[in-house]
Amino acid sequence: MCELLGMSANVPTDICFSFTGLMQRGGRTGPHKDGWGIVLYEGKAIREFRDSQPSYQSAVAELVKQYPIKSCIVISHIRQANSGRVCLENTHPFIRELWGRKWTFAHNGQLKKAKQALPLSFYLPVGTTDSEHAFCWMLAQIRQQFPVMPEQPEPIWQAIHQLCCQLNEYGVFNLLLSEANYLYAFCSTKLSWLTRRAPFAEAILKDAELKIDFQKETTPNDVVTVIATEPLTTNETWNTLEPGELAVFQLGELVSTIKAKE
Amino acid sequence: MCELLGMSANVPTDICFSFTGLMQRGGRTGPHKDGWGIVLYEGKAIREFRDSQPSYQSAVAELVKQYPIKSCIVISHIRQANSGRVCLENTHPFIRELWGRKWTFAHNGQLKKAKQALPLSFYLPVGTTDSEHAFCWMLAQIRQQFPVMPEQPEPIWQAIHQLCCQLNEYGVFNLLLSEANYLYAFCSTKLSWLTRRAPFAEAILKDAELKIDFQKETTPNDVVTVIATEPLTTNETWNTLEPGELAVFQLGELVSTIKAKE
Repeated sequence: MCELLGMSANVPTDICFSFTGLMQRGGRTGPHKDGWGIVLYEGKAIREFRDSQPSYQSAVAELVKQYPIKSCIVISHIRQANSGRVCLENTHPFIRELWGRKWTFAHNGQLKKAKQALPLSFYLPVGTTDSEHAFCWMLAQIRQQFPVMPEQPEPIWQAIHQLCCQLNEYGVFNLLLSEANYLYAFCSTKLSWLTRRAPFAEAILKDAELKIDFQKETTPNDVVTVIATEPLTTNETWNTLEPGELAVFQLGELVSTIKAKE
Repeated sequence: MCELLGMSANVPTDICFSFTGLMQRGGRTGPHKDGWGIVLYEGKAIREFRDSQPSYQSAVAELVKQYPIKSCIVISHIRQANSGRVCLENTHPFIRELWGRKWTFAHNGQLKKAKQALPLSFYLPVGTTDSEHAFCWMLAQIRQQFPVMPEQPEPIWQAIHQLCCQLNEYGVFNLLLSEANYLYAFCSTKLSWLTRRAPFAEAILKDAELKIDFQKETTPNDVVTVIATEPLTTNETWNTLEPGELAVFQLGELVSTIKAKE
């Protein structure tokens, strides 16, 4: 299994603190030693960093920790390989363009038989993971349903939820997805989130000897949501998504949830 | 105008030396202060680094210089904006997927009226440059002509040459392009290249007080070609491509050239 980390914020915010915690799980406090990746949106553009080295000893990860790149949407992933060998093209997040938007996809779980069952069309995988296959299938489905970006976002949210539920039938499908505007989090088995806003307090990292006083780092109007496979801090209350639930975040706020049908 | 830098090698090679020279032209020895980007292939995967800051003072560029990432194909670009504002989504290289391959495109020049004349279909630009528009158009043309990657590469080379000549009619179109296997260099006005092989000698950088003894850095079997808008070293003989000429490199060697029809 892998671990996911996402962030949505209303002002460009660095993710150094949470990223430091996550990276420890990449081979030190956790077994996810088969590569890692991070995508940071800057407007419609992205920066990406990735490595097939374990994150806790990756030179590129060290660079990202030291260089506080500020962003309103971040998606990160550390990998414990189960489908597809350990190499750079199999590291998440995966990226494709639709509607002149960069879509970013990071997945935690295994999707057995999804490769055989889900035919590909417009997008093809570069690597060999079931995750990238699922992403290529999913984005082609969205493209087919919405050749042009619709003006109202709700139909897309519904479509994404439906596609996630379909993929979930093939196995475990915890997902972080973005197209530069919204951050989508779909829970198959495990995904937690919290929103930090004024009055900001101190947070203590679970996986490294590090704490931070967010009051010193923020302004009173900042709203920052962090999403992770497991809570990253020990002294804050994290919300848990239900299996089958899609949460949609924008500018740090939860704007919608869509739950699985009974 | 902008500057291009490319590398093709038969063993993973770092581009620190040439990159250091190029980065000086990004605001110090040259006027290309409107961002920069670099894509490094590792097998079929890519790493990319980019910034909208001038390269000579970019923290990310500093990281790339210090961290010798080895690659067999590299494409880099420093930008002097003429079409499209200075922002991350307008930095080259641009990337799209076709045939399960990551295609990387970096352009030097201006293509007047190309946006109005060249209709888009499969791929849409994220930013506002004429370069990204041209890339989206070009890749859709290749996709249309070759829905599946052909077994023989020559028809693709011919198609790429023809598309480059078409784009060249709209203005200046110096290009570096790759799909993880070949590195393509099309010369509209200015593009130089050299191949370094045993016996390796010393090279002296034009734009920084730096020289390197490649004999100490290489093995006798290494073959490395560097392509640049203008020669990067003062003591080596660079080849010049003719206007309308496409050069195809693989594993450090020139494997084909296609010239403009008389």
